[in-house]
Amino acid sequence: MKKVLSINRYTGIDERSSIGTIDHPLVNQAAPPTIADLHKTFMSDGVPLAVSASRKALAEARVEAEQVTHMVSTTCTDSANPGYDHFVAKELGLSQTVEKVLLHGVGCSGGLAALRTAANLCLGHTMRRQPARILVLALEISTTLVRSELESIAALQETRIGIALFSDCASALVLTNNILPPPTPPIYSLLTWQHRTIPSTESDLGFDVDPLGWKVVLSPAVPKLAASTLRPTFASLLDPLLPSLPPAYREPPDFDWAMHPGGATILTGAEQELGITSMHMRASYDTYVRHGNSSSATIISVLHRLRGKEMDALAPGPREDGGGGKVKDYVVGCAFGPGITVEMCMLKRHLAGPRLGMETPPETESEASVESEDGGEVSEGDGIEVERVDGEGKGEEKQISGRDCEKGSIDTRRREEEAFISEALERVELD
Amino acid sequence: MKKVLSINRYTGIDERSSIGTIDHPLVNQAAPPTIADLHKTFMSDGVPLAVSASRKALAEARVEAEQVTHMVSTTCTDSANPGYDHFVAKELGLSQTVEKVLLHGVGCSGGLAALRTAANLCLGHTMRRQPARILVLALEISTTLVRSELESIAALQETRIGIALFSDCASALVLTNNILPPPTPPIYSLLTWQHRTIPSTESDLGFDVDPLGWKVVLSPAVPKLAASTLRPTFASLLDPLLPSLPPAYREPPDFDWAMHPGGATILTGAEQELGITSMHMRASYDTYVRHGNSSSATIISVLHRLRGKEMDALAPGPREDGGGGKVKDYVVGCAFGPGITVEMCMLKRHLAGPRLGMETPPETESEASVESEDGGEVSEGDGIEVERVDGEGKGEEKQISGRDCEKGSIDTRRREEEAFISEALERVELD
Repeated sequence: MKKVLSINRYTGIDERSSIGTIDHPLVNQAAPPTIADLHKTFMSDGVPLAVSASRKALAEARVEAEQVTHMVSTTCTDSANPGYDHFVAKELGLSQTVEKVLLHGVGCSGGLAALRTAANLCLGHTMRRQPARILVLALEISTTLVRSELESIAALQETRIGIALFSDCASALVLTNNILPPPTPPIYSLLTWQHRTIPSTESDLGFDVDPLGWKVVLSPAVPKLAASTLRPTFASLLDPLLPSLPPAYREPPDFDWAMHPGGATILTGAEQELGITSMHMRASYDTYVRHGNSSSATIISVLHRLRGKEMDALAPGPREDGGGGKVKDYVVGCAFGPGITVEMCMLKRHLAGPRLGMETPPETESEASVESEDGGEVSEGDGIEVERVDGEGKGEEKQISGRDCEKGSIDTRRREEEAFISEALERVELD
Repeated sequence: MKKVLSINRYTGIDERSSIGTIDHPLVNQAAPPTIADLHKTFMSDGVPLAVSASRKALAEARVEAEQVTHMVSTTCTDSANPGYDHFVAKELGLSQTVEKVLLHGVGCSGGLAALRTAANLCLGHTMRRQPARILVLALEISTTLVRSELESIAALQETRIGIALFSDCASALVLTNNILPPPTPPIYSLLTWQHRTIPSTESDLGFDVDPLGWKVVLSPAVPKLAASTLRPTFASLLDPLLPSLPPAYREPPDFDWAMHPGGATILTGAEQELGITSMHMRASYDTYVRHGNSSSATIISVLHRLRGKEMDALAPGPREDGGGGKVKDYVVGCAFGPGITVEMCMLKRHLAGPRLGMETPPETESEASVESEDGGEVSEGDGIEVERVDGEGKGEEKQISGRDCEKGSIDTRRREEEAFISEALERVELD
């Protein structure tokens, strides 16, 4: 428990979003809540977050609820039939014929797995010459598992660090094709994606069902294993794009990186492996520091965060005006999940536009032009609305901590904290 | 308990497939197995079934494991990260880059939901001019929940009939597009599909997570609710096909029906609502009687069963040779799941061919021709291999009961049993 508390202090996370405060009755009873109790809270407290995130995404994309054709959702913190997506769809007033896909088994990589699946469905609808307006949704209520993790720490005398990382979040975006003209200019174009599994790593990262919820499996090998797959996956991602990418975009540091912040060591490992700086992953660090790891829902938060103007000031390398870095036109999205699986995608940012929307041209199809739009994202915690995206697509933000977001401050503090974390982790044996 | 035993006797099910016999240790201990115990058995006993079903499907479709591009799987009787599909893919030797989708929250409608999702992915790959060879897989291990259901019956004094219906099964098929020539002629063409939710019926049908597994929610209103949606869904299904369908195919009795046999009353309700006979659903009855309800995995079994020559002898109406019914060229697939959701699809049978393969032309696209193949299906129980599909696509079968399958015998016996079931159910209040 001392080790866990030490790690909790030095994760680099300032605040974690939660559906409840630390005195929430669910985690303050003699016995940990059961998976059935967790399900009830997921429904009562999680579903409204997902509805709120979806509403904001739809509003920003200027897509009406009844125009939504598909819904691709994910969660690893609930299991039920009908799935939670059914209740979100109902609350939003989506059509009774909306095609729903709820992904399971993909853990933290669920957000990009949902985006990939949605992009494929989008192309399928283009093939049928039908408009696609796909709501992509991730919802994770993880903090209610704290009590169960404490029970495991006490019973097994294991240093379980999941308890120090996870947070609650719902995030959503809208993906459409161009069968009908898009109602708003896009934020991102989704150019291509890669998905692969690292062989024989099933037992290194997992989240398996238990009477008390899901139990985190996280071996100390994960950051190294994750890092090892980055270069080959990036090479495969880049290959089909080489003819069309500007020559300035060839090596990892040429791109901005929206990396899922599974933990600080995942981010630092990626920096070392790819030869990039924390500035390349400024939105990942910022999201991690402010909210922690909300599993599948985090990557959409990171993509949203990256479009904020305050992130531009932290862009890597010297800026053209001599005052700082240059914002990249291309962004690599990346997340790791159980398997170990890596999901990677290439996005083109539309800096000139209002930073709204997402577009998905098929990689090998020259005539067809598939467009899609990102309708924004929201993460909420503890009743406080953290990020709001209005109908005009301008980001407004309420600070939930006093952290100074000026260039470099996150980086410096983080580096200090990492030394502590690395030190703490080196002395720890995990299951 | 007396009511449950009475219902169990008169479900119309002769045998239920199970991974274990009635003396299996998992369900014969003082306490019911927990959801974690169930997960272990799902992995140890279920995954090999899924691997076996997948291997047979791939062999019959003549698709090599490394040629598989996507895998769309479903289950409602397991929750884990990575999902079970990861372990099946590994055992089959699928590529590390195979795109996997594991559906959750769709219960008994999961098989057709997976087929629909796979068909959309297939079209997406056609749009990118890439070959798609999609393994569609359903795995349900339900009989291990018997002990937990007994516990609920004792504790709540409720008449819970799930205990009397569910069985274990893995089933698989292969769907491909025609970017490359298909290695085998197709069994079915998938022409179009419909998916819709019946409003305000969430609490009538469900399967929600619990420390002891998943608890069945099944109200007596389900057969009626399910029946009520059949005609409007069928009308929507038929509408886009009317210009291309032969004039002899307009009304429900003009088609064969592959209906998910959720229970005998679902089938009899469909007969009354649609004006069809049990002979139209001969494969549904046969699968139900021989195996029970294996949730999402059953519908693929029914589609497989329907292509067996022994089913042709039970076709409805007078045959052209005067001796019996005529096998229909078009088949409606239909399944109900929590929501309540109905999944419906239109298939064209390829009677002239070797009854292999499945083809999915997009409904609104005239130039593109998407083909896909059904690679067969297997359900196994209690160590006995029930259905085998060899590389030539001929079905061999081992009988696991002495039931006489001649025309009418199923029907007659079933009708007798239904009277008992209806009577038993009428006096029953369910949760």
